[in-house]
Amino acid sequence: SPHLTWSVCTPRVINAEKSEFNEDQAACCQISIRRREPGLEEDEEWLILCSTQFLTGHYWALFDGHGGPDAAIIASNYLHYCIKQKLEEVVGGITEARPPMHLSGRCVCDSDPQFVEEKHIHAADLVVGALENAFQECDEVIGQEMEATKQTGGCTALAALYFQGKLYVANAGDSRAILVLKDNIVPMSSEFTPESERQRIQHLAFLFPKLLDGEFTRFEFPRRLKGDDVGQRVLYRDYFMEGWGYKTVEKADLKYPLVHGHGKQARLLGTLAVSRGLGDHQLKVIDTNIEVKPFLSCIPKVNVFDFALHDIKEDDVLIMATDGLWDVLCNNEVAHVVRSFLAENRTDPQRFSELAKCLVCRARGKKRGHQWMLDDSHEASYDDISVFVIPLHNREKD
Amino acid sequence: SPHLTWSVCTPRVINAEKSEFNEDQAACCQISIRRREPGLEEDEEWLILCSTQFLTGHYWALFDGHGGPDAAIIASNYLHYCIKQKLEEVVGGITEARPPMHLSGRCVCDSDPQFVEEKHIHAADLVVGALENAFQECDEVIGQEMEATKQTGGCTALAALYFQGKLYVANAGDSRAILVLKDNIVPMSSEFTPESERQRIQHLAFLFPKLLDGEFTRFEFPRRLKGDDVGQRVLYRDYFMEGWGYKTVEKADLKYPLVHGHGKQARLLGTLAVSRGLGDHQLKVIDTNIEVKPFLSCIPKVNVFDFALHDIKEDDVLIMATDGLWDVLCNNEVAHVVRSFLAENRTDPQRFSELAKCLVCRARGKKRGHQWMLDDSHEASYDDISVFVIPLHNREKD
Repeated sequence: SPHLTWSVCTPRVINAEKSEFNEDQAACCQISIRRREPGLEEDEEWLILCSTQFLTGHYWALFDGHGGPDAAIIASNYLHYCIKQKLEEVVGGITEARPPMHLSGRCVCDSDPQFVEEKHIHAADLVVGALENAFQECDEVIGQEMEATKQTGGCTALAALYFQGKLYVANAGDSRAILVLKDNIVPMSSEFTPESERQRIQHLAFLFPKLLDGEFTRFEFPRRLKGDDVGQRVLYRDYFMEGWGYKTVEKADLKYPLVHGHGKQARLLGTLAVSRGLGDHQLKVIDTNIEVKPFLSCIPKVNVFDFALHDIKEDDVLIMATDGLWDVLCNNEVAHVVRSFLAENRTDPQRFSELAKCLVCRARGKKRGHQWMLDDSHEASYDDISVFVIPLHNREKD
Repeated sequence: SPHLTWSVCTPRVINAEKSEFNEDQAACCQISIRRREPGLEEDEEWLILCSTQFLTGHYWALFDGHGGPDAAIIASNYLHYCIKQKLEEVVGGITEARPPMHLSGRCVCDSDPQFVEEKHIHAADLVVGALENAFQECDEVIGQEMEATKQTGGCTALAALYFQGKLYVANAGDSRAILVLKDNIVPMSSEFTPESERQRIQHLAFLFPKLLDGEFTRFEFPRRLKGDDVGQRVLYRDYFMEGWGYKTVEKADLKYPLVHGHGKQARLLGTLAVSRGLGDHQLKVIDTNIEVKPFLSCIPKVNVFDFALHDIKEDDVLIMATDGLWDVLCNNEVAHVVRSFLAENRTDPQRFSELAKCLVCRARGKKRGHQWMLDDSHEASYDDISVFVIPLHNREKD
């Protein structure tokens, strides 16, 4: 069946030869969304069972764990269930001709005509809302589960859902999804790191200074300050600044910065390299009582791609990968590998799986002495690397 | 002199025939930034006076007042002074070859090599920071001044600064600036309204529920709910949602929404149509003790245009205008008027002033009976309309 083909041909490969413990997890499944016959009450259960119809979604997700694999494992087993539940809560709005509060239509409110409005809400907005709520629900469940079992850790989450002719990509963390199409590359996610979310994080510390317990400064400086900087003028940024200003260094500025470092070295509270994800409910800054969780967000940013507006070609694919791939290969390099590999392997029925392996091997590099090197003799990725290659042309057209 | 020409040929026109009181204010001036000779201490004042050099900036700003003209008047008299002050605080970083903490360079910190970093900070980032700080400073001064004189009200602020070959546009509110160039239109600002900042505003109410004093709901609904909606399923959004979900209406959901309405009807706390600006320190929701100011931001978003990267043509202009213009004319319509007017009036030395008047007249429309109508027989703007037309070709090239 096309279902089976689509699911099976999306392999994941892990950087197993380098790291002793792998913290990446992946999930891939169909989601069956129960559609209740309109007008039936919850207690008419025998009728519900007789009249149940199902809508099908296709789901792929990558979870990059930190502080242990447990959060990633729970998320890989549970997030799709949360998404199924949240979609079932709104499925009426997606399939009924006249859903509650006239979705996409005009709400007339005779008693209060000045509030009559059209908000242009579409079915896709309900799917986006369901994904946002599902991430939050999954985060709560992970918190309870890990509290109960005394486990620790967290994970990033990148989830793709193909549903009703549209692709939804929900991202919380530093994994990335791109569409590699014949003539262009479409980014389907952006990364959430202490650096990209500096202003949100600093603002929270401004609103609730107690969260830093006197141990951190919320200001950003270009480098760590030291004792003999006191009295000097240095560049700094506060929560409301995209630009930079000068301030005279005081003793309090010598504290460790809330957000510090650049690129892959950027850290939140000196502890975490990502600012969104699931789990980390128990995480504290080492040797302190400072909790990291208040500064984290479990809410994904969801991007939508409507297949009805695009002519999808045979070799067009969705690439999803953890940061292990993107640290060493940029979007253009990945797209180049994708296009040349698929052009050279036109008849291989396993070509999408082989492409996923090929991408992982590129990022892993080759061992030369004690080092792993890329073809261009840059250093390779030492991180876990997980890649999904999802062909778009033969998708189920429902 | 070219200075004078540039300042004089940027007129502002007000919709004076319709509204009895005009709440728009404008300002336009040169800003002289005192550049202190490096190495001089503050107490060597006689040396400072001898060696002072000045850098020149050109400044234009529009302020659209609400709740009275006072905040707009103070801002129009004071914001450029704040900008001058903030620029003087950072001018060393802009002009010195080796500014403190090696602006644009590498900071080497021998004692702590893991923190050595390059942040790629440029002189333009200091100007952006100075503008952000100047808006905040100006807002504080307006607060003190209006408290002392028992005045009330607030205003939006749109400020443009031409400095060292770059154009900076700082915006807090719903005015707009665009560059109309020969071959394209470059938006230089975006609008801050209760609708565009819904998530920021709802999030603050989630963090500090007391700010709503039990009188408002932070949820967004597609229309105002009424008593017989209780128990029904309605669409809603919370602070973390870009999508929509369903919830069952409870009595608390019947409260007035924190952010309500669509487009020009959108209101914050049922009170304000903008979510950023200066002033409003004393503003309370009518008949309550609920303060509006905590939900407002005085911080501008600053956009930068670098003239060194563009070939500016003779008829290229910066258009700045309050919402009175943009409510009835879109960017493309304004650009069309600009290009055709300037092409038809090539020799008129007053053509940029005449163009500003022409844009205001277009938005004001013509009186037919009791109504003001546009050429396309849509209703015209009843708001104040202020327009700057700033030619870019003959700018001072410093």
